[in-house]
Amino acid sequence: MIKVPLSNIKVPRINVVRRKRMGLPGAIPGSFLIMENAVPSKIFVFSYKTDFLEETETESVEEAFAFTDKHPDCFHWVDVRGLGSQEVLNFIQQKFGISNLVMEDIVNIHQRPKNDEHNGYSFIVSRMLELDKGLQLNNEQLSFLLFDRLLISFQEDYKDVLDPVRLRLRKNTNGNIRKLGPSYLMYALMDTVIDHYFSIINRIGDEMEMVEDHLYQKPHKYLMYRIQGVKKLMIAMRRAAWPERDKINDLMRLNSPLVNEETRLYLRDAYDHTVQIIDLIESMREASTGLLDLYLSLMSNRMNEVMKTLTIISAVFIPLTFIAGVYGMNFAYENPKTGEILRGNMPELYIENAYVYVLVLMAIIALAQIWYFARKGWFKN
Amino acid sequence: MIKVPLSNIKVPRINVVRRKRMGLPGAIPGSFLIMENAVPSKIFVFSYKTDFLEETETESVEEAFAFTDKHPDCFHWVDVRGLGSQEVLNFIQQKFGISNLVMEDIVNIHQRPKNDEHNGYSFIVSRMLELDKGLQLNNEQLSFLLFDRLLISFQEDYKDVLDPVRLRLRKNTNGNIRKLGPSYLMYALMDTVIDHYFSIINRIGDEMEMVEDHLYQKPHKYLMYRIQGVKKLMIAMRRAAWPERDKINDLMRLNSPLVNEETRLYLRDAYDHTVQIIDLIESMREASTGLLDLYLSLMSNRMNEVMKTLTIISAVFIPLTFIAGVYGMNFAYENPKTGEILRGNMPELYIENAYVYVLVLMAIIALAQIWYFARKGWFKN
Amino acid sequence: MIKVPLSNIKVPRINVVRRKRMGLPGAIPGSFLIMENAVPSKIFVFSYKTDFLEETETESVEEAFAFTDKHPDCFHWVDVRGLGSQEVLNFIQQKFGISNLVMEDIVNIHQRPKNDEHNGYSFIVSRMLELDKGLQLNNEQLSFLLFDRLLISFQEDYKDVLDPVRLRLRKNTNGNIRKLGPSYLMYALMDTVIDHYFSIINRIGDEMEMVEDHLYQKPHKYLMYRIQGVKKLMIAMRRAAWPERDKINDLMRLNSPLVNEETRLYLRDAYDHTVQIIDLIESMREASTGLLDLYLSLMSNRMNEVMKTLTIISAVFIPLTFIAGVYGMNFAYENPKTGEILRGNMPELYIENAYVYVLVLMAIIALAQIWYFARKGWFKN
Amino acid sequence: MIKVPLSNIKVPRINVVRRKRMGLPGAIPGSFLIMENAVPSKIFVFSYKTDFLEETETESVEEAFAFTDKHPDCFHWVDVRGLGSQEVLNFIQQKFGISNLVMEDIVNIHQRPKNDEHNGYSFIVSRMLELDKGLQLNNEQLSFLLFDRLLISFQEDYKDVLDPVRLRLRKNTNGNIRKLGPSYLMYALMDTVIDHYFSIINRIGDEMEMVEDHLYQKPHKYLMYRIQGVKKLMIAMRRAAWPERDKINDLMRLNSPLVNEETRLYLRDAYDHTVQIIDLIESMREASTGLLDLYLSLMSNRMNEVMKTLTIISAVFIPLTFIAGVYGMNFAYENPKTGEILRGNMPELYIENAYVYVLVLMAIIALAQIWYFARKGWFKN
Amino acid sequence: MIKVPLSNIKVPRINVVRRKRMGLPGAIPGSFLIMENAVPSKIFVFSYKTDFLEETETESVEEAFAFTDKHPDCFHWVDVRGLGSQEVLNFIQQKFGISNLVMEDIVNIHQRPKNDEHNGYSFIVSRMLELDKGLQLNNEQLSFLLFDRLLISFQEDYKDVLDPVRLRLRKNTNGNIRKLGPSYLMYALMDTVIDHYFSIINRIGDEMEMVEDHLYQKPHKYLMYRIQGVKKLMIAMRRAAWPERDKINDLMRLNSPLVNEETRLYLRDAYDHTVQIIDLIESMREASTGLLDLYLSLMSNRMNEVMKTLTIISAVFIPLTFIAGVYGMNFAYENPKTGEILRGNMPELYIENAYVYVLVLMAIIALAQIWYFARKGWFKN
Ligand SMILES: [Mg+2]
Ligand SMILES: [Mg+2]
Ligand SMILES: [Mg+2]
Ligand SMILES: [Mg+2]
Ligand SMILES: [Mg+2]
Ligand SMILES: [Mg+2]
Ligand SMILES: [Mg+2]
Ligand SMILES: [Mg+2]
Ligand SMILES: [Mg+2]
Ligand SMILES: [Mg+2]
Ligand SMILES: [Mg+2]
Ligand SMILES: [Mg+2]
Ligand SMILES: [Mg+2]
Ligand SMILES: [Mg+2]
Ligand SMILES: [Mg+2]
Ligand SMILES: [Mg+2]
Ligand SMILES: [Mg+2]
Ligand SMILES: [Mg+2]
Ligand SMILES: [Mg+2]
Ligand SMILES: [Mg+2]
Ligand SMILES: [Mg+2]
Ligand SMILES: [Mg+2]
Ligand SMILES: [Mg+2]
Ligand SMILES: [Mg+2]
Ligand SMILES: [Mg+2]
Ligand SMILES: [Mg+2]
Ligand SMILES: [Mg+2]
Ligand SMILES: [Mg+2]
Ligand SMILES: [Mg+2]
Ligand SMILES: [Mg+2]
Ligand SMILES: [Mg+2]
Repeated sequence: MIKVPLSNIKVPRINVVRRKRMGLPGAIPGSFLIMENAVPSKIFVFSYKTDFLEETETESVEEAFAFTDKHPDCFHWVDVRGLGSQEVLNFIQQKFGISNLVMEDIVNIHQRPKNDEHNGYSFIVSRMLELDKGLQLNNEQLSFLLFDRLLISFQEDYKDVLDPVRLRLRKNTNGNIRKLGPSYLMYALMDTVIDHYFSIINRIGDEMEMVEDHLYQKPHKYLMYRIQGVKKLMIAMRRAAWPERDKINDLMRLNSPLVNEETRLYLRDAYDHTVQIIDLIESMREASTGLLDLYLSLMSNRMNEVMKTLTIISAVFIPLTFIAGVYGMNFAYENPKTGEILRGNMPELYIENAYVYVLVLMAIIALAQIWYFARKGWFKN
Repeated sequence: MIKVPLSNIKVPRINVVRRKRMGLPGAIPGSFLIMENAVPSKIFVFSYKTDFLEETETESVEEAFAFTDKHPDCFHWVDVRGLGSQEVLNFIQQKFGISNLVMEDIVNIHQRPKNDEHNGYSFIVSRMLELDKGLQLNNEQLSFLLFDRLLISFQEDYKDVLDPVRLRLRKNTNGNIRKLGPSYLMYALMDTVIDHYFSIINRIGDEMEMVEDHLYQKPHKYLMYRIQGVKKLMIAMRRAAWPERDKINDLMRLNSPLVNEETRLYLRDAYDHTVQIIDLIESMREASTGLLDLYLSLMSNRMNEVMKTLTIISAVFIPLTFIAGVYGMNFAYENPKTGEILRGNMPELYIENAYVYVLVLMAIIALAQIWYFARKGWFKN
Repeated sequence: MIKVPLSNIKVPRINVVRRKRMGLPGAIPGSFLIMENAVPSKIFVFSYKTDFLEETETESVEEAFAFTDKHPDCFHWVDVRGLGSQEVLNFIQQKFGISNLVMEDIVNIHQRPKNDEHNGYSFIVSRMLELDKGLQLNNEQLSFLLFDRLLISFQEDYKDVLDPVRLRLRKNTNGNIRKLGPSYLMYALMDTVIDHYFSIINRIGDEMEMVEDHLYQKPHKYLMYRIQGVKKLMIAMRRAAWPERDKINDLMRLNSPLVNEETRLYLRDAYDHTVQIIDLIESMREASTGLLDLYLSLMSNRMNEVMKTLTIISAVFIPLTFIAGVYGMNFAYENPKTGEILRGNMPELYIENAYVYVLVLMAIIALAQIWYFARKGWFKN
Repeated sequence: MIKVPLSNIKVPRINVVRRKRMGLPGAIPGSFLIMENAVPSKIFVFSYKTDFLEETETESVEEAFAFTDKHPDCFHWVDVRGLGSQEVLNFIQQKFGISNLVMEDIVNIHQRPKNDEHNGYSFIVSRMLELDKGLQLNNEQLSFLLFDRLLISFQEDYKDVLDPVRLRLRKNTNGNIRKLGPSYLMYALMDTVIDHYFSIINRIGDEMEMVEDHLYQKPHKYLMYRIQGVKKLMIAMRRAAWPERDKINDLMRLNSPLVNEETRLYLRDAYDHTVQIIDLIESMREASTGLLDLYLSLMSNRMNEVMKTLTIISAVFIPLTFIAGVYGMNFAYENPKTGEILRGNMPELYIENAYVYVLVLMAIIALAQIWYFARKGWFKN
Repeated sequence: MIKVPLSNIKVPRINVVRRKRMGLPGAIPGSFLIMENAVPSKIFVFSYKTDFLEETETESVEEAFAFTDKHPDCFHWVDVRGLGSQEVLNFIQQKFGISNLVMEDIVNIHQRPKNDEHNGYSFIVSRMLELDKGLQLNNEQLSFLLFDRLLISFQEDYKDVLDPVRLRLRKNTNGNIRKLGPSYLMYALMDTVIDHYFSIINRIGDEMEMVEDHLYQKPHKYLMYRIQGVKKLMIAMRRAAWPERDKINDLMRLNSPLVNEETRLYLRDAYDHTVQIIDLIESMREASTGLLDLYLSLMSNRMNEVMKTLTIISAVFIPLTFIAGVYGMNFAYENPKTGEILRGNMPELYIENAYVYVLVLMAIIALAQIWYFARKGWFKN
């Protein structure tokens, strides 16, 4: 039943990367300071319509928007990866008249998923979760500025999980992704992010089955670390999933002119997915509590077993050892000075076969105890 | 009070079949890929009205709908079992103009119970639960496309729990099932599915009584596995029952033209059932937590008993053994070199009846201890 | 402080009678099959108005309604006890045009308290709880069909808790019970049922006080069984009390013509009672959790005490026994072959008063340890 | 850090007085039977306006209302203490036309805080909590009948916490209490009752600090009894505080003509207080759970310590004792019959300094074990 | 992985300063008694507009408002630090016609965050939390009286966390803080307070990581104290954060003329922050429960290890010691009186190499046991 031997488990602990919130208390609200460890921005631009697609990659924000300006009849996706370049952010803020508070939220990467409608644009946040090989959860902020014909996305670093959408954008020339504009594109990106949540949940489900199978064999300490790790993951995922659901509901219900009717239908589907995810997360949280209970009761079971072993051995041998000790005493047969016989001083020692009788007595005591423990069921597990 | 001996319990663990969610992250939404392990579709068609019923079974979807087209004045139930045939799904999608997203949900068998109204049809999902002999819970998706005079149902495999409805359809020529059209038929199918939930709950109730009876005898490890299993079942059943209730409420309240007035009355009854089920599930969850607490406290009780046994035996015999050890020491009576008497070296050994005195002393010590432990209540359980 | 000695507790366990839900999955909804263990119906009829009362008892339903028909200007209460007579149920269904689904609910005795208004009558369910001498909870269904001038009640068996109402009906000729018609009578019956909940809660409160008092003396295993029993009772009572509250609220608020204004005032009072009951149940649930925590921590306390006893005795005597063992070794004073003195071989044995010195050493070691344990507080509880 | 030594704690348990609900099941609703242990009523009357105040005390209800009738232009407070005089209650009921159900609630002292508006008067219930010296919580019902110019209050016994209000009534001739009529007076009484809740919470806070300080020193059993007591108090206080909040909200929002505008402002303040109280109660409940967890983990810590002590001593001495036992064996040097040397029989005993070598060996074994345990960290706590 | 050695942890416990609620029960509502330990007030005044700023510091309230009166075209911030000067409070109350109840709330420093609108002014409460070096949480009340062109703030003592705002006020001559009036200034102060919550949460996050890292090494008692401390902090922070969120929502939604439109946008941002804080607090509470579970299961793990050590050593040596004891018995070879050989009395002692055989037997027994324990997995952790 067990597929993975415990020795193969290289990573004893599952972890969640913690990112500290930066920013000085009392700073001017809307002052967006580049984070210390932010990487310089790279900008990837897609300009597309049904029968046309052109891409470019640049580090200059002027170049990027010069490229989009060349295709006024196209939709555009400007994908800013890395939040370390002040000039990029400044340029975008000024060109599109973005509020200071929005710019601060883009840079301050601890936003919960949300949908804020502004004058002429919407600001939307997703959490892009990824569980790496070493069972470490990365929780990256993916924010969007949604305009009528333009989508700007912001990511913390260069890596992401969005390549399948890029592929569809390039290949699926007749699909909705080319036709339905930036709101559908944003939906497609969010949906991909959410699909990734399912992958993570699948892996954690495997993990929990593995832990349970091992637990039934032997409640090893490492297994408990893993359960603890699953719990931490679940806490982190919940924090992303619940507001994600609300955000999508918001996008679906509010009558923003930026989200077209057809996209709304798809958002309904994404909403179902977030509900499924929340459902799975809550089930797994309960299941992980169950595993912890299992671990603890198995531990107490083992302790019981250990103690029974000790008690049986001690209980059997301690009285016997006492008897042996008694007959090891040196009470004298006769007074060494006077030679007179000291009556009462261990006359048993001088009886024929007394040794055999004592051994038999010992055996009887031992058997009586073993019978007593057996009747109490101590030899059954 | 105990009917089932523990040795008769063949299955130590209760399990929930886990089905992994398939589908590539970032796939085109509404792309419905046949699952790897899906079985080829078999189609069972019923065409009926009050005084007429004809059935057929086929693997060709064209044949199936040719059959329904022969009876334009009848109601039809097209029961598709097995989701492994792309052509079947494509045919149905095209013939009835079903949305891509709906088709995806039919194939992607992890939907929660729901009721989605579309243009001209409704899409409804039920979860068909079954607890097999080996205490394994199967959780199959049963989806419906409800039209004005036609009901199409989709199941994952060929087996189901719906035969009683088929029987009523054949025999009960004058019943509502023949008269009230596909919405009533769908209700009858869902009701049968829900009745099955009660059977499962009954079995789990038996299980819990058995576990409790055994626990009071002896808190065996296997019993705890069973409690854990009950908890897992309850988590799984809850995930099905709560949205099931909401779905039926939806069907009952929304003014869909596809659900007739008389059926609504029956849905009210089904709604009551789902509420009862949720109620029972929550009670059982609490009760299973109670059983776990019972197990843990009984374990700690047994541990206490084991430790008391060890302590009493050790406490009684260790001091006695020490005394025996003292009189087993070899301090010399006289200096072997000079022959002078070494005063103070164990003169007790040379006193008449000293051995008897020591035995009496030992008995007194032992009795004092036993009296002490008895007064502390250690001999009562 | 303890009034009941534990030995007087005859019943170690508190139980809830479990009644399995019957009925075949997929049966025609509204098919009301007499349950296997249902008893034949006895019918008790009261016809009354302010200055008049006549009663009869019969097993024939025709007779019963012939009796009511004799008094067209009276109110009537037809009390059907026992649900085992198909003809009784059929007669009532046909005479008053009761829906199939209602008849099914009367027979299928697992309904939650509810109030369903129908055309010309209301169908109301109460749960009649009783805790018998042997601490067994009975949970009987009491259903009502409420008409303008007639109340029909249905019980599972012949016994009930409703005699005080019958007495008032007979004696209190000028009271509301004679004046306000069947809705007030039904209220009076429900109120009596609810008053019984308070009695049960009172008994459980006594139980919990007894358990707590005993616990503080000695955490006996039986006490934990009782706590477990209280928890089971609480789960069962909650299942009855919460929907009872909603039902009475419903009766009070909905503008049913069958419930007159004056009765509504009394329902408001009954509503208060259900809220009090729910409040008490939740408090007792918490308190029983507290008792379990108490039990567990007292157990761990006792274990600690047991282990300290063992450790002190072992720690004191084991080193002493070792010393005694050392001086019990037989290293030879001289080489038996050559007679040469073996220097270094236990010269202590041949020193004057060495035995006394060793005893003193042992005493010092023992006292040092006892002092150490005392300082650690191990002798205080 | 510890101010109170444990030995000073005279009262090991905190208790909540339980009052059983009386009344026969099925009694006529609104029949108000004097409780068995009710004390005879004493009536205290205040008649007052801004520039006038007169008081009287009597046991005759006629006298009391004769007194109020003398001052038709005054406000009146009739304070009935003790609910044991049927004639007092009857007189009031008849004089003011109070509903039977209200009279029952006055006498049946288990009402939750509530506000019931009736025709011409309001009926309001408060719970007057008091924690006596012996840490026993008393929970007295204080009910009000509020009229336009008259307030009647009912208490279970003669003692109360309302003297500060009486004092203000007498002294504060120009204050709101003289000007704003009975609704403000009732507010002032309720506010005083609520202020008392804060006192109780303060005492419990002290208690919990004391328990925590002691726990960190030594997890004594008594401390756990105290935690348990705090939990019981919290359950009781919650039951009073939550409906109290709702009641005051009700008084504040409903447009009863009996409550004047200015009093409403003060009720808003009282409402804030009830919210603060609920907040504090919930925090304390959590904190008391934390203390229990602390207790349990400290207990398990101590057990660990005890077991380590036992294990270290046993592990060190048991092997040594075995070695000593080996060299205490009596295998003969020569055959006593034949005198032939028995080779292999404990030649060590006849080696020079063998005893010293054995002692050294023992020391090495002991040190090795101590080193091993030290490295495992068993000597650190 | 561990950065901080446990020995460096100077402060074993995290604490929350508890402030007792003062005030006599039954005091006149709105009577604001200076608290015993209140410090005398110091008043800091800022008068400012876009191109102008003047500050002063005084202890005289007349002087302070004389200063503001000099600049009728400016906005003013009067910052009262210390609540111990009755005349200051009286002056303010009279000058601005503040309600008694508001004055009481300013002095009675246990208010929950709230927003109360009054005639011409608003009264707003914030909780200013600070975690000092010694891991002690201070919870200070910061209240505001907000007027059209004036903001009065009240603090308990002279220290605060608001200097960054003062700096912005002085330096940022063209910022919103100079332009948007007292509502924006109040927002800026509250925002700074809230930013401080994030700092505290960051420190607690570090703390929890440290505790977890150490736990995995060794479950020291101190670590559990720290977990307990984190829980207490979380309870305190929650009590501040939840009503803070509601308060800001209130400020944002209610159409108070005192809060201008632009400030509302910023309040929306502050609202986001409070939601994030609540989210983080709840996650940390769960995580701290996880740490406690981890601690407890690690403790039980260690106990298991300790017991296994004891059991293995005892089980191996106790039987061997028994055997040694047997051969240490003194059964006589011959009757000392008669010299006749006592057959059966330990003939083994006189067999050649019997000692060796016994040693071999002992080794076999020991190895068999070790093999048995190894097979049971007791040597693996
Ligand atoms: Mg800020
Ligand atoms: Mg922001
Ligand atoms: Mg997040
Ligand atoms: Mg990235
Ligand atoms: Mg998706
Ligand atoms: Mg996180
Ligand atoms: Mg637990
Ligand atoms: Mg997808
Ligand atoms: Mg879908
Ligand atoms: Mg499901
Ligand atoms: Mg199937
Ligand atoms: Mg059904
Ligand atoms: Mg599942
Ligand atoms: Mg059915
Ligand atoms: Mg029904
Ligand atoms: Mg029920
Ligand atoms: Mg009955
Ligand atoms: Mg009642
Ligand atoms: Mg039940
Ligand atoms: Mg009653
Ligand atoms: Mg009442
Ligand atoms: Mg009183
Ligand atoms: Mg107050
Ligand atoms: Mg209580
Ligand atoms: Mg109460
Ligand atoms: Mg717990
Ligand atoms: Mg007050
Ligand atoms: Mg106030
Ligand atoms: Mg300050
Ligand atoms: Mg901020
Ligand atoms: Mg606070």
